[in-house]
Amino acid sequence: MNKYWIWFPGDFEIHEGMLQNFTREERGMRWPAYWYIDDCYKNIKFEKTYDLAEPTTFTVHTHQQGYITINDIKYHVNEPITLDAGKQSIVVYIFSPDQLPTIYIEGDVIYSDPSWVADNYVIQRPVGYSKLFTELSDNPAKIPYHHQTIQPVSMTNINNGLLVDFGKEINAALKFSGLKKPITVCYGESKAEALDTKMCYYQQSNIIDPSKIVKRAFRYLFIPNYSANSINVVADCIYLPMQNKSSFNSDDELLNNIWQASIRTFKLCSEVFYIDGIKRDWWIWGGDAYQDNYINQYSFFNEDVDKRTIIALRGHDEVLQHINTIVDYSLLWVISIYNHYEMTADTEFLEMIMPRMEKMMQYLLNQTNDLGFIYGRQGDWIFVDWSEMDKDGTVAAEQMFLLQALKAIITAKKALNQDTSNYENRFNTLKENTVKYFWDNEQGAFIDSYESGKHHVTRHANILAILFNIVDDDKKQQILHNVLLNDQITQLTTPYFKFFEQDALCQLGQLKTVYDTIKDYWGSMIKKGATTIWEEYDPSVTGKQQFAMYGDPFGKSLCHAWGSSPVYLLGRYFMGLQPTSAGYSTFEVAPHLTMFKHLDCTLPIKGGSVHFRVHDGQVDITTDRPGGTVVTGKEKILLQPNQAVTITNEN
Amino acid sequence: MNKYWIWFPGDFEIHEGMLQNFTREERGMRWPAYWYIDDCYKNIKFEKTYDLAEPTTFTVHTHQQGYITINDIKYHVNEPITLDAGKQSIVVYIFSPDQLPTIYIEGDVIYSDPSWVADNYVIQRPVGYSKLFTELSDNPAKIPYHHQTIQPVSMTNINNGLLVDFGKEINAALKFSGLKKPITVCYGESKAEALDTKMCYYQQSNIIDPSKIVKRAFRYLFIPNYSANSINVVADCIYLPMQNKSSFNSDDELLNNIWQASIRTFKLCSEVFYIDGIKRDWWIWGGDAYQDNYINQYSFFNEDVDKRTIIALRGHDEVLQHINTIVDYSLLWVISIYNHYEMTADTEFLEMIMPRMEKMMQYLLNQTNDLGFIYGRQGDWIFVDWSEMDKDGTVAAEQMFLLQALKAIITAKKALNQDTSNYENRFNTLKENTVKYFWDNEQGAFIDSYESGKHHVTRHANILAILFNIVDDDKKQQILHNVLLNDQITQLTTPYFKFFEQDALCQLGQLKTVYDTIKDYWGSMIKKGATTIWEEYDPSVTGKQQFAMYGDPFGKSLCHAWGSSPVYLLGRYFMGLQPTSAGYSTFEVAPHLTMFKHLDCTLPIKGGSVHFRVHDGQVDITTDRPGGTVVTGKEKILLQPNQAVTITNEN
Repeated sequence: MNKYWIWFPGDFEIHEGMLQNFTREERGMRWPAYWYIDDCYKNIKFEKTYDLAEPTTFTVHTHQQGYITINDIKYHVNEPITLDAGKQSIVVYIFSPDQLPTIYIEGDVIYSDPSWVADNYVIQRPVGYSKLFTELSDNPAKIPYHHQTIQPVSMTNINNGLLVDFGKEINAALKFSGLKKPITVCYGESKAEALDTKMCYYQQSNIIDPSKIVKRAFRYLFIPNYSANSINVVADCIYLPMQNKSSFNSDDELLNNIWQASIRTFKLCSEVFYIDGIKRDWWIWGGDAYQDNYINQYSFFNEDVDKRTIIALRGHDEVLQHINTIVDYSLLWVISIYNHYEMTADTEFLEMIMPRMEKMMQYLLNQTNDLGFIYGRQGDWIFVDWSEMDKDGTVAAEQMFLLQALKAIITAKKALNQDTSNYENRFNTLKENTVKYFWDNEQGAFIDSYESGKHHVTRHANILAILFNIVDDDKKQQILHNVLLNDQITQLTTPYFKFFEQDALCQLGQLKTVYDTIKDYWGSMIKKGATTIWEEYDPSVTGKQQFAMYGDPFGKSLCHAWGSSPVYLLGRYFMGLQPTSAGYSTFEVAPHLTMFKHLDCTLPIKGGSVHFRVHDGQVDITTDRPGGTVVTGKEKILLQPNQAVTITNEN
Repeated sequence: MNKYWIWFPGDFEIHEGMLQNFTREERGMRWPAYWYIDDCYKNIKFEKTYDLAEPTTFTVHTHQQGYITINDIKYHVNEPITLDAGKQSIVVYIFSPDQLPTIYIEGDVIYSDPSWVADNYVIQRPVGYSKLFTELSDNPAKIPYHHQTIQPVSMTNINNGLLVDFGKEINAALKFSGLKKPITVCYGESKAEALDTKMCYYQQSNIIDPSKIVKRAFRYLFIPNYSANSINVVADCIYLPMQNKSSFNSDDELLNNIWQASIRTFKLCSEVFYIDGIKRDWWIWGGDAYQDNYINQYSFFNEDVDKRTIIALRGHDEVLQHINTIVDYSLLWVISIYNHYEMTADTEFLEMIMPRMEKMMQYLLNQTNDLGFIYGRQGDWIFVDWSEMDKDGTVAAEQMFLLQALKAIITAKKALNQDTSNYENRFNTLKENTVKYFWDNEQGAFIDSYESGKHHVTRHANILAILFNIVDDDKKQQILHNVLLNDQITQLTTPYFKFFEQDALCQLGQLKTVYDTIKDYWGSMIKKGATTIWEEYDPSVTGKQQFAMYGDPFGKSLCHAWGSSPVYLLGRYFMGLQPTSAGYSTFEVAPHLTMFKHLDCTLPIKGGSVHFRVHDGQVDITTDRPGGTVVTGKEKILLQPNQAVTITNEN
């Protein structure tokens, strides 16, 4: 008998998502996200009819206002009600001008659970609920954050002030005590930022005992004009607990550290929603969330943050604008539902999100031409990436996204036993035309745009063609050699798309290249002392300059979720674990672990885990769930639950 | 140089409308309106570009949060900013999770006025503003209500308690002082209601000094279990001032009292929005508002309450549901814009509302069949009236409403120089088919439905055909005799539709009938001591029973806006004043005042007034504005400003 606080489905996420997108601050100014933002519905009915075998008592609890009708007779909320046996049709009317309308019904027979229906007077749907709010003492308006107190590790007098180092990047409120006079605090993810009293991202003045200081991201604090050599301060780390279901210990200490820093980074950026970085910008972005989903799958396997983010990105049924105003992000949003389904086989979520998925797909298909190609309309942002690209007319990369989005909705609708023929026709036509118009036989690669006549090749569309399995093996090999391994094709400049590139290289068997990249790019960041993974890193840049980005001297985020991709790349391609049907009802393990002499690694799967142990030239693989198959170059071996399969550690 | 608080157009009305629809209480329970309710947008940009001749200083004030960019450089809100000469592109970003985002810019050159543009990141439109909020010290979150203290006129010990009479119906908060112990207060519009400690609509217990007691409608208070013969209490009447621009004094004392009670009733029901009654139900209803518009035109001529109500009824651009869930009310909403335009010639409002008018019209036309007839879809409420009616298939009355709605949008679009051909074609086809399918030659009347084959005649469609001028004079006369004056056709049961019937009778010249109705129906209410006009009145019902309605012993509202229709009927048909082009740029005065020996009456028109004086068998008509024509049975006489035209008082 699981009781829940219940609400209109999606509205908890939409309301909290609004608050999230309104949280950003920068240099003393508040900075809301620059897109259209929905709020929850304000006027809601909750309904269920019972056929009672005997009299029963229950109470409808709410922090908002309203009333109840039972068989059309009115009752009060927040007071016990006793009903006789027989048919009892209960409707709870709740409204609030500024809060999420939500109720909790306590009773032995009548109680609030997912079987109730919510109604905004236009749409009737099964209620929304969350494992975060299961007790009467819970309140969906109050996220159950946990607290951990962290002490500084050092304090140093410098620049006529005091520099406080907490030893690692954290996301915390500050608690000062014993202050003799008001102080100013400058925050820094880096020492350089904290010491820059003018340009540091966060700064608070006139702090006295006991000022309220909100949660902010930092490792260092600088208190200017402060001559004493210590100060009473602790950091109150505020976080939503999330269990790490993975572990990684190898004989490669650097790789161990990369994994740990990735896990830390990812956790810091995952609370109610995925945010891109903890310093900047606290907004929910579709592109970042898409990649976070993959990292999550190989570490925390937290289905809830995935779902909350997908819902918050989207808002209510009607589509007024592309997600984050970016056409590609709307497409990635559709695909993310497919990815989440492959990970979880959660058809309840599919049912919930399907009306919004269909409306989004319709919105996207409304901007396609006769060839099925999606184009940008006025005000649309065809982003793809920050790189130079020929965006004249329709663009190849967008068609790749659209093909995968069509595949996503086809899979989702099939899982719900819904007709998909319209989408399948669309998919087939688009696939044929994409190859016909964008594949350049001479260059053996996809070009950006065919309308311009420039036949310009960038990496993006070609990477996506690999990832989304749009071309045959012959063309994949052409792409590998003509584009991915071809230094004459302009290198990617953003970690966002490098994520996709590493993924594509792995799919094409280039594990050595990817392994070297992890050790070099991530490794040198760790060697330099990073405690979390940066948004972007270039070892050739030094001094203050390394913290600059987007034209801001401290614009770079030093704890950025997409930086945690080694977790995904190692888990998916080196441990070689992947579902082969939705929710891992079947899954494959194809290890490539010759770089390790010793390794002890656990990875989550839906409802279980897989354990890898490398020792003495062999790999032991164990799982606690049926459905697994170990795949080596030579054979396929069925994995029985709790029975190790041992293979030779070779590629 | 008029400065205003500015916001996204319509959002003040939508946000306050939500609060209004959430205000109702009944017997200790809160009772939100039972339809979908919009709130304002939460994330808004305000934009204007100046070309400054010299440096200037200004401050952007807001009670919400955000920042400013000027030529892409960031500035703080609520702090003075000085700009150099030259092009300065100002964008103000304001957000709030729970309040209306609004700003006030103070400066000599740069200030907030209707020339600014608001943007919700999807739609860009000229800002919204109101004469209620023109000073920095104003705040659109705080309606500038006025207060007036009223003393009780009598106190009587009865039923072991104290009955307090304030002498007339008021809408007020209570202030008690000197209470020795907690008391309970039962409210009553009638003495019977106050004394019914179980079923009275409003009741508050545990009142002590100085309890906060919200505004409620009442004339009587009853304090049970209170033996002293007096209590210290005053009523704090809370109201939004609205100037009465009409006056009426005749030799008929009863009619004078009817007029005064109507004006009082109408004022009590008109604050930020028109509400139907002050006791019940505080929601904004399209049908009531439609009629209020006509009464307003002949009394307060307050354009703002009209506009606020029209916007609040509608919500944002997208139509999710019919207004109040009723198809006819959506149609009346469209027509109300026409009526407001005829009254005011306000093209700025037309520009503002046109996108929402068009989307509503599209929503309505999406539910028409091949003949152009509008039909109800599942979940739609084809109301028309509470009367028995044959609603099988498409219904005649709805087609009448649709014809007038088409006329409304054609007029509105023409006023904005927009193309109307599509709507004109629709109108012509629908008019032809409505007569062809719904006019019954044998009965000489419109039937309710032709699909049922029952050929059933009710008054409704026939009344509307007159009001909206859908048939020729021959058919009008047939309707008059076969329906309106035919006692075999079931009488109307609701004051709502009786308003339309009186209007139609007047249009057909049946002034004597209408005059008798006013004197009988309204007159007997006044004679009985009513201080405001009731929702419904039947002199044959006595005792407690007369206060019952909708199955509730005190469900009837004793101060109900639509009851004020004598003001409209007298002004429009007896004084005979009406605009003959939008905003009274031309208007007609055709008096029928033979029932008066003496009369002194002023009626408002746009930007002026018309004065009537009956004495010595003649009528003197004066106006302070050009454009008027006096029409008698014999001639048309041009009215010059401030020059009386005198005609014989005859019909």
